[in-house]
Amino acid sequence: MKRMLILLFCFFTLQISAQTDAENLKQIFSNSLTNGMSYQWLDHLSNQIGGRLSGSLNAEKAVQYTKEELEKLGLDNVWLQPVMVPRWVRGAPEFAYIETSPGQTTNVNICALGGSVATPNGGVKAKVIEVNSYTDLEALGTDKIKGKIVFINRPMQADLINTFEAYGGCSSERYRGAAEAAKYGAVGTIVRSLNLRLDDYPHTGSMSYGDLPVNQRIPSAAISTNDAELLSGMLALDKDINFFFSQSCKQLADVQSYNVIGEITGSEFPNEIIVVGGHLDSWDLGDGSHDDGAGVVQSMDVLRLLKESGIRPKRTIRAVLFMNEENGLRGGRKYAEVAKSKKENHVFALESDSGGFTPRGFSFDCSEAMLAKVQSWRPLFKPYLIHFFEKGYSGADIGPLKEEGLVLAGLRPDSQRYFDHHHAANDTFEHVNKRELELGAASMTALVYLIDAYGTQTISNTEELRD
Amino acid sequence: MKRMLILLFCFFTLQISAQTDAENLKQIFSNSLTNGMSYQWLDHLSNQIGGRLSGSLNAEKAVQYTKEELEKLGLDNVWLQPVMVPRWVRGAPEFAYIETSPGQTTNVNICALGGSVATPNGGVKAKVIEVNSYTDLEALGTDKIKGKIVFINRPMQADLINTFEAYGGCSSERYRGAAEAAKYGAVGTIVRSLNLRLDDYPHTGSMSYGDLPVNQRIPSAAISTNDAELLSGMLALDKDINFFFSQSCKQLADVQSYNVIGEITGSEFPNEIIVVGGHLDSWDLGDGSHDDGAGVVQSMDVLRLLKESGIRPKRTIRAVLFMNEENGLRGGRKYAEVAKSKKENHVFALESDSGGFTPRGFSFDCSEAMLAKVQSWRPLFKPYLIHFFEKGYSGADIGPLKEEGLVLAGLRPDSQRYFDHHHAANDTFEHVNKRELELGAASMTALVYLIDAYGTQTISNTEELRD
Repeated sequence: MKRMLILLFCFFTLQISAQTDAENLKQIFSNSLTNGMSYQWLDHLSNQIGGRLSGSLNAEKAVQYTKEELEKLGLDNVWLQPVMVPRWVRGAPEFAYIETSPGQTTNVNICALGGSVATPNGGVKAKVIEVNSYTDLEALGTDKIKGKIVFINRPMQADLINTFEAYGGCSSERYRGAAEAAKYGAVGTIVRSLNLRLDDYPHTGSMSYGDLPVNQRIPSAAISTNDAELLSGMLALDKDINFFFSQSCKQLADVQSYNVIGEITGSEFPNEIIVVGGHLDSWDLGDGSHDDGAGVVQSMDVLRLLKESGIRPKRTIRAVLFMNEENGLRGGRKYAEVAKSKKENHVFALESDSGGFTPRGFSFDCSEAMLAKVQSWRPLFKPYLIHFFEKGYSGADIGPLKEEGLVLAGLRPDSQRYFDHHHAANDTFEHVNKRELELGAASMTALVYLIDAYGTQTISNTEELRD
Repeated sequence: MKRMLILLFCFFTLQISAQTDAENLKQIFSNSLTNGMSYQWLDHLSNQIGGRLSGSLNAEKAVQYTKEELEKLGLDNVWLQPVMVPRWVRGAPEFAYIETSPGQTTNVNICALGGSVATPNGGVKAKVIEVNSYTDLEALGTDKIKGKIVFINRPMQADLINTFEAYGGCSSERYRGAAEAAKYGAVGTIVRSLNLRLDDYPHTGSMSYGDLPVNQRIPSAAISTNDAELLSGMLALDKDINFFFSQSCKQLADVQSYNVIGEITGSEFPNEIIVVGGHLDSWDLGDGSHDDGAGVVQSMDVLRLLKESGIRPKRTIRAVLFMNEENGLRGGRKYAEVAKSKKENHVFALESDSGGFTPRGFSFDCSEAMLAKVQSWRPLFKPYLIHFFEKGYSGADIGPLKEEGLVLAGLRPDSQRYFDHHHAANDTFEHVNKRELELGAASMTALVYLIDAYGTQTISNTEELRD
């Protein structure tokens, strides 16, 4: 009889708790869709500030703006975490053309890759050798490459459903292409933009020379997908055409910047920290609305939505707006370094850095048992069409926090449009849909709420086996 | 032993069949994403033809174009099915303003609702009475309404996740508003656009006077959401402001048009017909890319993708491009009438008329047993992030086919952006993403493939109970 009563008690407690969770999620989503701040904050970041390249005045303005907005929320703590960041500047607009015969030129759209050196004054003009990947260079060797511009024309694979997978299949061409081509005496590299669409926007992004000596570094630029097709077509007709490009970008000395942090102190376990974040810096061509203004304002809104919904978290919920994800990851590394030195106990970290599109779910870097625990919450997310809960990548900024027991996660919005805008001049506010952004903020808040309520403890594998 | 062998045989047959299904779906999706025709067809429909209001020259061009394109696919039959359609024309651009005092006017953005009468020559100017719904009119009565313009300012409910549900909560204001207001002596109605976003586009759509005598009909227009907010705000300050609008739309005599039909004859059960369709007509303000150029080209691509993937369907697969969904549904009714008179056996009908956005799944008008059968295919759809398989609305054009045993379904794309464009001047090609459109075509093809392979027969409830 006593056992029966206990069972009944558990049953009703669970029922009540399940009801409360469903109600809280409903409140979170309603609040976000009717009263959310994400869109208004993003409007300011995008349209009043604009692109926020690390070390720029705009990046500094974004630090001040988001700090002030977090302070208005009545959080328990808001502070700036100092971090030195690299400062790379684009300089004058890049210029490039294909020359089919002397005086016969066709202009094409390029942009310098982040971290690239400038061309010599007056630009560089040379014959072109087209490859599908930097891994093709070794077979060609110095004989065929020396003195030429290497054109890496590797299209993203269109039949992959997850466009980030297609990105992963090409991103090292952009990152390593110039360093590899320089080894064989190339005078520059032109890389096909990482864009699944055919259009005229060149897409920038970080590149590295690795340990290549400074005097061997060659300029590297991205070319729009339309112009990559054009150049490839022209080369098929005549291998002897010339390509010209000029760019005046340069790397300056590191400058002082900040991660922006705000938190609600946990009512029961204040030392258990849940992080939710995005990155405050962006590339300079657009206004960084999707990458990653969206993640920034959604992370801020997680704190606001919890407060607005009258939820008092048991654990400390901290929004971290990381600086310098794009070209250095200094903010993410600094945050982890400080956390370690202070022996802070991080239990969960969630990053939004995949665009402000309709959320589909989350990917998790965690144990099978923890994944199963999260998947048991599926019914709570179903009314919001959040259906994706799988193992996978979390986020660059929270990556350095990784340690045994910490659960990492990434918001997974619909990915089909993301690379139309990623790192390009059309990553702008008008391509963000208000409702999609707000649904993302609400989904993140809902997951944080459930993680806070039920923790990240699971029955260990050993215990499961014993059962 | 014999029983064991039979079981083993069944097991391996199922395994092989499951593999083949997964492979066929992979081929369908890859083909659509790398080699699809939907986007190219939509480009022509949208940019070379444009808005395709029933009875217009553009609608006729769209009939001819889609017939020719279907003929190029090497189908077994392509034909036009004659249907008489209404012809309503917008006439000169509408014009409207708010007059706060004589000579003090603010222009606002309106458009005539489809089916509305014109204003008197020179327009109509009157005081305004604002209501949240036409159902509020009875309580106000003739005293307060006579001689005034009724302004129905009912916002779509923002916290509904499915935006079609929010649309459903307001659409009868647009459809019935004028007929109801006329009963109380109103001289016109202005209806808030059915748009979840605040912007300057007025959204048209069908309205009806019901059985109201011709001489009692009053003009009805939609006002943009921004201007609805403005008008409401001005009315709150001063109830005596005037509103002026002029429109010169009219209803002409019915004209000859067509449904466009193409089919692949079934190899085993040619008399069992599977229909996949969208509607060829659109409103006139934009180019009808999402509503419903997307559904048209996706339906055409279902036939092409089946052929390209080397799948020979057992049942007859028919693409039907319906005419006049927007303001009459004559095409849908005619198709059902002819099917009935020919005693055709339709087993499944699928409509795409919810925009060309990322597909999330399908809603079904069918038995529980059939839904369970479809839901058993979830694992096959999972790699494509198609997760929604629920009871629900199918589509307007296939609705008239409804009869016992016929399974009806609707493609359910992500709905967040749909009403930003629906029936407005910004329903245009550049708002359709190529991959999202192609994923929709592939999803439809995959469902049609599985329905063809496994039929729509289910174990009846009686048999289930017997088990």
